[in-house]
Amino acid sequence: MSSTEVTSSDKLVLYTGFFSSPPSRKIVILLDELNVPYEKKTVALQNGEHFQPWFKEISPRSKVPVLVTPHLPQPLLESGAIHDHIIQRYDTDHKFSFAPGTPEEALQTQWLYFAAATMNSNQVAAYFFRVQVKADWEYVELQLASERKRLELGDAESVWLVGGRYSVADISVWAQLAFVDVMATVEWKTWGFKEVERWYEAILSRDGVKKGQ
Amino acid sequence: MSSTEVTSSDKLVLYTGFFSSPPSRKIVILLDELNVPYEKKTVALQNGEHFQPWFKEISPRSKVPVLVTPHLPQPLLESGAIHDHIIQRYDTDHKFSFAPGTPEEALQTQWLYFAAATMNSNQVAAYFFRVQVKADWEYVELQLASERKRLELGDAESVWLVGGRYSVADISVWAQLAFVDVMATVEWKTWGFKEVERWYEAILSRDGVKKGQ
Repeated sequence: MSSTEVTSSDKLVLYTGFFSSPPSRKIVILLDELNVPYEKKTVALQNGEHFQPWFKEISPRSKVPVLVTPHLPQPLLESGAIHDHIIQRYDTDHKFSFAPGTPEEALQTQWLYFAAATMNSNQVAAYFFRVQVKADWEYVELQLASERKRLELGDAESVWLVGGRYSVADISVWAQLAFVDVMATVEWKTWGFKEVERWYEAILSRDGVKKGQ
Repeated sequence: MSSTEVTSSDKLVLYTGFFSSPPSRKIVILLDELNVPYEKKTVALQNGEHFQPWFKEISPRSKVPVLVTPHLPQPLLESGAIHDHIIQRYDTDHKFSFAPGTPEEALQTQWLYFAAATMNSNQVAAYFFRVQVKADWEYVELQLASERKRLELGDAESVWLVGGRYSVADISVWAQLAFVDVMATVEWKTWGFKEVERWYEAILSRDGVKKGQ
């Protein structure tokens, strides 16, 4: 099946909050990049709707995002797991991901966990407790620089995180970084991370990303 | 290749801290359960060894765990990504995991992210800021109860998180819970989560788990 062929029985429903936090936004972007149709249902967190019994039936810990799909016997929680499921099912020709078992896929998985586990928890901590998160951006910068170095003999213009092309790895980390701008928690653009800025703008200009605002 | 056949060219090196935090411990357990030989190198975090140049070459953000393997061109960071790589390479007959593309694998991935992203960040927060983490154990309890219900027509004795058998999902979540006992942050055993206690003890009694202390 081609990545863009979705049958009419695929009725995906994605529950998100009233604005898109990074874990929700990265899913929306990936679905839009893949042209997978879905229904987005907004749960009014500001009114405590996530604590209502109907939503706790879907998400026992009252968390968003949650994906409801006819392909799984129960709602799927955890943004990283939702990303993984979408890749497996709808990106079978690996337009935005790397083939299982390849070194690039291991690196891709590293970035997916970096976004979901390391960056997200640091950002939540930064928001509530004003903890320093600069080290995370320095790491992204370092990786972008080393990726460029690795590719110098070939395509030196690449700024992508894995394998010299835009992928779900970039989407995941980008969504975390974009949220820094939304919340204005840290002024990362004053830090002089030129590689990160170039990468950030390259992704921001994509149609699938604009659509997934 | 059978899961337990490892060639002599497989020289895995796992860098961990001076004691095993959950992200390191779950990897050690999985390697021991699979009988994969590896060298464990302890980085003296208490002496700041992780900030020394030799270690930053391996782990730019000075984080453990890190896996160095001849099968990848660079060290692999993020405990969830390391788990995933080990499963793909050394659990090819799915003794401790579920086959890609199955509903069980989607649920397994959900639990891997739950452990690495949700539980770990909540536990770090609980340690530093005394944030409430009880909701996570309640969720595990709920899932174990619903798993038991689902299995009632078959094997009602199962307490495992996915598909009625012990897997990497259990290992990941268990390692997080075990750390609560190590740090004594919360007295979860007084909360009356009988299903969780039974599941916890069942895993604790396994040889592969005892070995990976």
